[in-house]
Amino acid sequence: MTDARTATEALRGQPEPYRWEGVAELAYKEHDTTFRGVTRRVLFGAGDGQAVEVRYFEVAPGGWSTLEHHGHTHQVIVLRGSGACLVGDRVLPLRQHDLVLVPAWAWHQFRATGDEPLGFQCIVPLDRDRPVLPTEEEFAAMTADSAVAAFVRR
Amino acid sequence: MTDARTATEALRGQPEPYRWEGVAELAYKEHDTTFRGVTRRVLFGAGDGQAVEVRYFEVAPGGWSTLEHHGHTHQVIVLRGSGACLVGDRVLPLRQHDLVLVPAWAWHQFRATGDEPLGFQCIVPLDRDRPVLPTEEEFAAMTADSAVAAFVRR
Repeated sequence: MTDARTATEALRGQPEPYRWEGVAELAYKEHDTTFRGVTRRVLFGAGDGQAVEVRYFEVAPGGWSTLEHHGHTHQVIVLRGSGACLVGDRVLPLRQHDLVLVPAWAWHQFRATGDEPLGFQCIVPLDRDRPVLPTEEEFAAMTADSAVAAFVRR
Repeated sequence: MTDARTATEALRGQPEPYRWEGVAELAYKEHDTTFRGVTRRVLFGAGDGQAVEVRYFEVAPGGWSTLEHHGHTHQVIVLRGSGACLVGDRVLPLRQHDLVLVPAWAWHQFRATGDEPLGFQCIVPLDRDRPVLPTEEEFAAMTADSAVAAFVRR
């Protein structure tokens, strides 16, 4: 019952670290200026027989992902470098292989705070809702917390 | 809408590499002698708002996972060490951060062939079918291939 063609193509090795054969670098988001220095790669997704997409995001030193929230969750595993993230009202330090669960509707943002890229995989449902940015009122409310205010970028 | 309790517990850091806070070491399989030197940890799963379970398996040097197949797929990312795996009729080398897709009903087995543990995450559906071992006839058929015969363990 094995599909020999698929099995032969099962391995996606690395011509260089954190780059995979047949996995293209994509724009993090199109027509968007809410982030800085982020790329996206789809490691597993539609056609792989599961209900999720596994993405690899890489944030350049000094960069950040969009400050947003949504109804689906993120299951995150850091693969490369270190940094920090906002989840809800907490700023969390990150290092290689740390796990982060971003709950539904938690505000979140990932930043590469060191001298090297922060690379992490992020599992999401294939069928998911679109991210929502904070309103001015929501941004003011979250940045009433000084630690959050010092961390977030727009 | 953020759940502050959940957000606070979002980070599962590492007291030591490849071991996570609040993530227990589990038996790979209970009452089973079809493998050698394999442990299991559930990194993400039921309650995390997605349809998958993300497990971390660690194979001790010289160890192997069960030679089996099933109708669900595996999305595998190597996190630690190196080794090799059988997928269908191919033996594939593995090193850190390589990606492997195990298609439905492909025979598969993971081995730590070097001096260090082989650690990998494996994504499966929460709702999945049970693994099936090869019959004697199936084992004879797959080991007609000399490379496969040299690799597989029972």
